[in-house]
Amino acid sequence: MLAKQWAIDDVGPTNLMVREAAVEEATGNKVLVRAEAVSLNYRDKLVLETGMGLPLQFPFVPGSDLAGVVEAVGPGVTRFKPGDRVITTFHPGRINGPGLGDARHPPYKTLGGYYPGVICQYVTFCEDWFVHAPKTLDAVEASTLPCAGLTAWFALVELGRLKAGDKVLIQGTGGVALFGLQLAKVHGAEVIITSANAEKLERARALGADHAIGRENWAERVLELTQDYGADHIFEIAAGANFGQSLKAVAVNGRISVIGVMDGFELSAPMQSLLLKSPTVQGLSVGHRRALEDLVRAVDRTSLKPVIDKRYSFDELPQALQHLDRGPFGKIVIGF
Amino acid sequence: MLAKQWAIDDVGPTNLMVREAAVEEATGNKVLVRAEAVSLNYRDKLVLETGMGLPLQFPFVPGSDLAGVVEAVGPGVTRFKPGDRVITTFHPGRINGPGLGDARHPPYKTLGGYYPGVICQYVTFCEDWFVHAPKTLDAVEASTLPCAGLTAWFALVELGRLKAGDKVLIQGTGGVALFGLQLAKVHGAEVIITSANAEKLERARALGADHAIGRENWAERVLELTQDYGADHIFEIAAGANFGQSLKAVAVNGRISVIGVMDGFELSAPMQSLLLKSPTVQGLSVGHRRALEDLVRAVDRTSLKPVIDKRYSFDELPQALQHLDRGPFGKIVIGF
Amino acid sequence: MLAKQWAIDDVGPTNLMVREAAVEEATGNKVLVRAEAVSLNYRDKLVLETGMGLPLQFPFVPGSDLAGVVEAVGPGVTRFKPGDRVITTFHPGRINGPGLGDARHPPYKTLGGYYPGVICQYVTFCEDWFVHAPKTLDAVEASTLPCAGLTAWFALVELGRLKAGDKVLIQGTGGVALFGLQLAKVHGAEVIITSANAEKLERARALGADHAIGRENWAERVLELTQDYGADHIFEIAAGANFGQSLKAVAVNGRISVIGVMDGFELSAPMQSLLLKSPTVQGLSVGHRRALEDLVRAVDRTSLKPVIDKRYSFDELPQALQHLDRGPFGKIVIGF
Amino acid sequence: MLAKQWAIDDVGPTNLMVREAAVEEATGNKVLVRAEAVSLNYRDKLVLETGMGLPLQFPFVPGSDLAGVVEAVGPGVTRFKPGDRVITTFHPGRINGPGLGDARHPPYKTLGGYYPGVICQYVTFCEDWFVHAPKTLDAVEASTLPCAGLTAWFALVELGRLKAGDKVLIQGTGGVALFGLQLAKVHGAEVIITSANAEKLERARALGADHAIGRENWAERVLELTQDYGADHIFEIAAGANFGQSLKAVAVNGRISVIGVMDGFELSAPMQSLLLKSPTVQGLSVGHRRALEDLVRAVDRTSLKPVIDKRYSFDELPQALQHLDRGPFGKIVIGF
Repeated sequence: MLAKQWAIDDVGPTNLMVREAAVEEATGNKVLVRAEAVSLNYRDKLVLETGMGLPLQFPFVPGSDLAGVVEAVGPGVTRFKPGDRVITTFHPGRINGPGLGDARHPPYKTLGGYYPGVICQYVTFCEDWFVHAPKTLDAVEASTLPCAGLTAWFALVELGRLKAGDKVLIQGTGGVALFGLQLAKVHGAEVIITSANAEKLERARALGADHAIGRENWAERVLELTQDYGADHIFEIAAGANFGQSLKAVAVNGRISVIGVMDGFELSAPMQSLLLKSPTVQGLSVGHRRALEDLVRAVDRTSLKPVIDKRYSFDELPQALQHLDRGPFGKIVIGF
Repeated sequence: MLAKQWAIDDVGPTNLMVREAAVEEATGNKVLVRAEAVSLNYRDKLVLETGMGLPLQFPFVPGSDLAGVVEAVGPGVTRFKPGDRVITTFHPGRINGPGLGDARHPPYKTLGGYYPGVICQYVTFCEDWFVHAPKTLDAVEASTLPCAGLTAWFALVELGRLKAGDKVLIQGTGGVALFGLQLAKVHGAEVIITSANAEKLERARALGADHAIGRENWAERVLELTQDYGADHIFEIAAGANFGQSLKAVAVNGRISVIGVMDGFELSAPMQSLLLKSPTVQGLSVGHRRALEDLVRAVDRTSLKPVIDKRYSFDELPQALQHLDRGPFGKIVIGF
Repeated sequence: MLAKQWAIDDVGPTNLMVREAAVEEATGNKVLVRAEAVSLNYRDKLVLETGMGLPLQFPFVPGSDLAGVVEAVGPGVTRFKPGDRVITTFHPGRINGPGLGDARHPPYKTLGGYYPGVICQYVTFCEDWFVHAPKTLDAVEASTLPCAGLTAWFALVELGRLKAGDKVLIQGTGGVALFGLQLAKVHGAEVIITSANAEKLERARALGADHAIGRENWAERVLELTQDYGADHIFEIAAGANFGQSLKAVAVNGRISVIGVMDGFELSAPMQSLLLKSPTVQGLSVGHRRALEDLVRAVDRTSLKPVIDKRYSFDELPQALQHLDRGPFGKIVIGF
Repeated sequence: MLAKQWAIDDVGPTNLMVREAAVEEATGNKVLVRAEAVSLNYRDKLVLETGMGLPLQFPFVPGSDLAGVVEAVGPGVTRFKPGDRVITTFHPGRINGPGLGDARHPPYKTLGGYYPGVICQYVTFCEDWFVHAPKTLDAVEASTLPCAGLTAWFALVELGRLKAGDKVLIQGTGGVALFGLQLAKVHGAEVIITSANAEKLERARALGADHAIGRENWAERVLELTQDYGADHIFEIAAGANFGQSLKAVAVNGRISVIGVMDGFELSAPMQSLLLKSPTVQGLSVGHRRALEDLVRAVDRTSLKPVIDKRYSFDELPQALQHLDRGPFGKIVIGF
């Protein structure tokens, strides 16, 4: 069987094309999945345009976050059967515990990177690389969990042990940020969200943000809104000098989850707050499969609906990638 | 009763003088303690010379880490009796849990700072400010626990949950560093220590360091010594650009305890390792009283002996402070 | 000033009387509080009737959970001012960390026990014994937090790290049980509640319980309702042989919080499930002040309203105590 | 190739025989290992004699804890190469996190039980079922880690977060008990060990036990030895009514790891200590592969040597099993 996929033959922004490739059969412990949706991350764009230093195999298919239906299973498969609705895991083989790598070779073996990507009509992967999709989400929604959803869950819940009454500061209104907002509300927390865009602030308020503030001098506003208590949890999306604002706003013994690099690949921190307030600064790189299963269970229980800014068709991948540059409100998804 | 104390009338390096002051009686829940030793920290020098922005009361007595003997107790005292050997707590009133402060006013109410210091023949404080001294240490040794000892314990044990087989990287051979080395060995860990001074490296080896290496390009050496695994725990003493080396050397999901500011008051971090290796970067500001009691218990059980570089007499405080500038191997203590 | 209080002159069910006693002034670090409500616990009845082996001082005033208003403060008080609304802490002086006691003398120094109780018009205690009341609760509601509310919070949140999607099994519909139900829902969990009373099951459903089942063979029902997954958290209220049901129903690596002794003062456990499913069985004795402050914050954020079965007037204490015997749905409170 | 193995054709004590069976080749992700030693557990005896309700496949080979050398690897194997020294994992496939099972079907898929055993000259298993053996142990010593060593490590270190100065109470001098003693000493803890046998107490003292006491009224002795503090960690090996002694001896907020069933398959607990001292009672069922790798690393770092009571040859399995009945001091191992 042949199936369509988006691929590049070389790194660079203009090389994307649709091609056909043979679909691998589901042998051994492999599962053949028909794609229904793929959620995009800004990282996908970086890989396509720069390769990010990864050992890509050409033709290279991008994309990591797929939702689909199991079409066939190999004889050794025990966790799935045909007809099951599934989603991929961002780091194949990271079942639980630390990422797979070491100090010299940091873990970064992801789909649509070290491993092939998923913007294909069909994929055939080891069953370990999938989890069951939530029952309460359609495929477009479900496809947003493996990277953006799990990153927010891992920061706030798995590592951050968020509890009702905690104060959470979310920077921006991208995919991870809005999952952070929604998960914080589901756990009874208080949420402050920042954005430079007044309309996005309004939409964040409608999603449940308790406070929505501008990006100008935001740390001072957080201190005012919390009567100097500060924020228990901060999603650091910008990095760069913005990190100094995060250190100003963080509560004593609070937690700063470093997730994004919007303002640059260096972090700069005045030491005084880091020492005296003793926050935990936690680098984040998505999370493991067990936590993704926890997230799926939480989504089904709480009826949380991921925020999709816009859905594109398979043929519209180039337009979808351009949308990423404009800073979506939530997620951009390719529906098949 | 009058007692001698070292004090300044104004901030500045040359104002130190010995004066006599009335000794407060032990009323209510207060305890009168005759000092036997005071351990110095580099911070004492900074407070004397710059005030560190603190609301000092003049005449101001420096020093935070005292060991002594209870001479008298107020009628409300329940934890101590005359004759008990005690040490001070660095942050008076921080019994357990977070430091006392908020996001705008970071916790920094210490002895010899916001509160008066302890380089006096007698001090009279609330009983809550003391813990029992270890039975196996003399006063000079015991005086090193409240700040340097507890900082290392809090980083490695209370927060770091150090276990046998862990790999610990210690920067330098100062007071906190050598406690880190000794506590790591007591828990069965592997220790790599860095110093620019060959003789100090030799002394560190004699104290149990498994590897003692130079400061030049130390992160690469750590990777080699650990077959690329990296270090589970890092004591970041230098800060500044050195932090980039720590991020290079840290193991996947390892922990960097940020303790000192030897190289400057800014921290600069390349983001890639912070994201991909997902270490925990933990600011440290000593610790709480319950953990100090745990440390005392551990010292008595394991016969750990703090490393005293040199002991000075009460009259030699100026010389002792000068010694701090030269970078002692372990602690400098004033014995009374 | 004289104030009315309920007291006994000797242990026994029939000795309760209203008497007048002098109100202590607020000196030192003490706070004078005018009572507005006292919440009752079954323990209050046991103390009155049996003394529970405690060294009671007669006339003995019962009760531990008070909400009131600060009337005056001593000169050393820093955390409260007149007019502040406050609630008591169940274990005076337990600020954070373990209870105050040792292996031979288990911690049980509570108000209305080792310490005097609070069914008085005025109480004068050390400021450490109070926390600020939630802004969103009236005094009758707020008085239910120090014992019942904190026990449920400590089990599920402080120790249990409850998260959205977790499955929580609550036994019964008493005060702790209904707090457990409400706190679990506030954190996005799934709740199964058991009761032998069909009407109470109906009311529990109205409060948000996802499943409400009878007490007959309840563990089997939990397995069915969870497709054999079991319960992540169990509130063990009955003890005795019922504990075997809890071990049958608990999920792999789940948590059983042992809270009550409805069915007897012995716990009996078949070992196989305890070994193979490796649950954590956690004895509970309310909690510490820092956690109570966390609960207050959570209540204010989430608008959780404690369930009051019936409110009695100060004069109706005997009737209120009789109501405890009948098994209230939620809490019984004396409003002043 | 044919290899010798011990097996039974039916459950019962007298059916053990040596037989020859074909050795499976190392295909796919499988590894062929030549056995050098198998460590025995009392459980092996129970499986042979009663089947323990497990779905055994006959001829059934007993034994779970093997040390050996990799002879050949399948083409998909990435973690091992021929010549590597390896040990088995007790629960195949439990990489990290909870055991594999659910509330109705508790996890108990072990080697020499649900899966075939290892008292064979050669075994061929999936590479996931092995870890690298410690460099500092010979095969006989290394074979004791997968069950006894890991159980003690999991209780004290992985779950118990043992630290220097903690007080550890070990019941008995069997395999798990002596690992507990040694691991506690490696972490700087204080160890009290109980035994009814004076000679074993003497040997335990020689291994580093700080206190070695009789089994008569042991809890009272623990209180005396700790000045009423109690024990932070208790290894509950006997269960039954002995558990009441453990509750008496446990420190406030201490931990009781329930490991064995020497005195019966029921646990009986007076509730008062369980409530007031609020210990954590933790059922244990060995542990996961990641923790076994941690243990291996700790053994190599600290030069801990497992205690082997007696080594038997392959042909002496019946005698070795009889030795188990007599209560060995440490482990019984079959050396090939």
